[in-house]
Amino acid sequence: MNQLFLGITELYTPFKKIEKPAIAVRNGRVAWVGAAENLPAEYSSWDKVDLGNHSVVPGLVDAHTHLIYAGNRYDEYLRRARGESYEAILESGGGIYSTVRATQAASEDELFDIAKVRALKFMAAGVSAIEIKSGYGLESLHELKMLRVIRRMQQELPLRIHPTLLAHVIPTGWNHKKYLEMFTDELIPEVKHRGLAEAVDVFCDQGAFTLAEARKILQAALAQGLKIKVHAEQIARTGAAKLAAELGALSADHLEQSTPEDWQALAASGTVGTILPGAAVILRKPFPNTRAMWDMGVKIAIASDHNPGSSPLYDLWLAMRLAISLGRLSVEEALIAATANAADALGQSDIGRLEPGAHADFLVVDTPQALLPLYQWGNTPLCSVYVGGQAVWPQ
Amino acid sequence: MNQLFLGITELYTPFKKIEKPAIAVRNGRVAWVGAAENLPAEYSSWDKVDLGNHSVVPGLVDAHTHLIYAGNRYDEYLRRARGESYEAILESGGGIYSTVRATQAASEDELFDIAKVRALKFMAAGVSAIEIKSGYGLESLHELKMLRVIRRMQQELPLRIHPTLLAHVIPTGWNHKKYLEMFTDELIPEVKHRGLAEAVDVFCDQGAFTLAEARKILQAALAQGLKIKVHAEQIARTGAAKLAAELGALSADHLEQSTPEDWQALAASGTVGTILPGAAVILRKPFPNTRAMWDMGVKIAIASDHNPGSSPLYDLWLAMRLAISLGRLSVEEALIAATANAADALGQSDIGRLEPGAHADFLVVDTPQALLPLYQWGNTPLCSVYVGGQAVWPQ
Repeated sequence: MNQLFLGITELYTPFKKIEKPAIAVRNGRVAWVGAAENLPAEYSSWDKVDLGNHSVVPGLVDAHTHLIYAGNRYDEYLRRARGESYEAILESGGGIYSTVRATQAASEDELFDIAKVRALKFMAAGVSAIEIKSGYGLESLHELKMLRVIRRMQQELPLRIHPTLLAHVIPTGWNHKKYLEMFTDELIPEVKHRGLAEAVDVFCDQGAFTLAEARKILQAALAQGLKIKVHAEQIARTGAAKLAAELGALSADHLEQSTPEDWQALAASGTVGTILPGAAVILRKPFPNTRAMWDMGVKIAIASDHNPGSSPLYDLWLAMRLAISLGRLSVEEALIAATANAADALGQSDIGRLEPGAHADFLVVDTPQALLPLYQWGNTPLCSVYVGGQAVWPQ
Repeated sequence: MNQLFLGITELYTPFKKIEKPAIAVRNGRVAWVGAAENLPAEYSSWDKVDLGNHSVVPGLVDAHTHLIYAGNRYDEYLRRARGESYEAILESGGGIYSTVRATQAASEDELFDIAKVRALKFMAAGVSAIEIKSGYGLESLHELKMLRVIRRMQQELPLRIHPTLLAHVIPTGWNHKKYLEMFTDELIPEVKHRGLAEAVDVFCDQGAFTLAEARKILQAALAQGLKIKVHAEQIARTGAAKLAAELGALSADHLEQSTPEDWQALAASGTVGTILPGAAVILRKPFPNTRAMWDMGVKIAIASDHNPGSSPLYDLWLAMRLAISLGRLSVEEALIAATANAADALGQSDIGRLEPGAHADFLVVDTPQALLPLYQWGNTPLCSVYVGGQAVWPQ
């Protein structure tokens, strides 16, 4: 199927801005993109789609979410806002453990129904590809349940979904060494065997996995041919970012406590630094020094970190706006960080950009100014969301 | 007309939380509010409205907006995000002056149509009362035009609208002394005579009015029996907050550069300190130390400061969430700041609270947890907005 999208005021690839562009799409992938006046003759007879003098940006890629969970953490949010620390709530058995209990108790169908609503909310706001982590199951049985929910979402929802197995915390009642062995020797191979995840992530921090434990988990993942990612330097600086760089991880995520030494390591290895503005702001932590990281050569991604505890954030545009204001990125850089760089954080080179060969995933913005959603805080004007050249929203 | 609202899980007045409440409303005002089980017999036969087991908070009051303007400042936003300062753009004739040119060029009907869309967007998001300033006209003719647009909005829109005459900057080509005389001796009396504003506000800052000029304008307003407000301590510390306290202003707004000395003065005078999270964050300024101000006894309000330059923010809930995270208010305090305290910043004691005698302006939140919109960043679930006991949204 050959399509030619016209009637576009301007487009960001995201690396460059093209005025009055055309996009030629063959079988869901970009065949050609450029100024319409330079359109090669071979595309001029393709089926024309007029986008009505609106602007276009690549579909957003949300490279770090915990979208599947039961219950919420409203009460904890009220407590934290009064001054209680996340760490104190975690240590008293609250925090993540309350979500684990609710998620373990929920059936696969219940989790699917809840997560589907959330995913479609993200899609309606312009996210055409999303990573979803397990990690609230903890026990093997429930981790596999979460990953099966993600697989069903892949099958039934029109946006692209990338599943990650997350080693989140060690469940109460488990010996650390035994849990680690279960995770590395049984769960990771099982997940690989069933094709339930593309990557393995580990929460390496105070109150979660140590650096040595994280290394074992990541090495087990690599041994199985899975990609790896790391929750690094959020609450305490542990050396996780350097570990991520050393092992060739796709990304090191959070980085609130990271240092120039960490940034150098990430820049040298090409490991993406994924900042999570929701968690930094909502937990009242220092905002990662995004400007300095970018200037030092770290490839920066921006993600929502959607989760019920530290980042109950439903809007990747808002995360981007915060990265502009508090992380001092330019508007153009924020778009790159939430599209092409976020795709790289998932190891996907054919999404998050409008270039020949890439999937034709893009947003039609309801204004001639393509970056207006980053200027208008709390008001994101979209006409439609395309995945693989097909309009998936509005439905 | 007598109404009895039932089927409510919980309600914030905002000063206290009431479980399973009832609200009795007579002719648009609250006659009684309390736990439904304590409902006095005299109200039990009133026409019942079942709110379907949802929760209720007072309608939000946005006490500081510049809602009426033509054009946008998208290009300036992109430039600022790349590192150019607001002050530099202002001094080069950009910034506010580009909005002034567009607003002067627009007709009264055009401005009404644009501003109506914006006001209804705020209303749909839960704002039942909004202050709107003039200030992009500068010349007497155009300031009066803006105020007439506000009057028409008061007549045609279902939310409450409070007009303020703003002395914003001195227009290019005017002698400072002459402009000040025009403003104090002609414009303020004319506005008072025509009943076009409730208050006069002055932007006292570097690049705008000096402290001495601000004093003259505010005294002229007081002499006419108008209330007064001050843009204070935003870019530079000028002493404007202390001036506001000294003259008994309703509010001193911004306060990014304010000091404990200023807070003491505001607390002693009862002048509301209105913080504007949008402008602080979007201009990358230090966030006002809201926690310290509140603890020192300043009555804190939160407003959107909606304007095309420093705060293109369409969502008062987002301003409240930022005040919680970056200003370290509790969730309950943020609600008080955007309802009852914001009403006090307008000199209105009968809005922004659900108490006997107050207008029955309230929001039905689409969840049993009344403060959920402050927990869910970027996702505000509302069923309906009531003004004076009548549902005004959805329409």
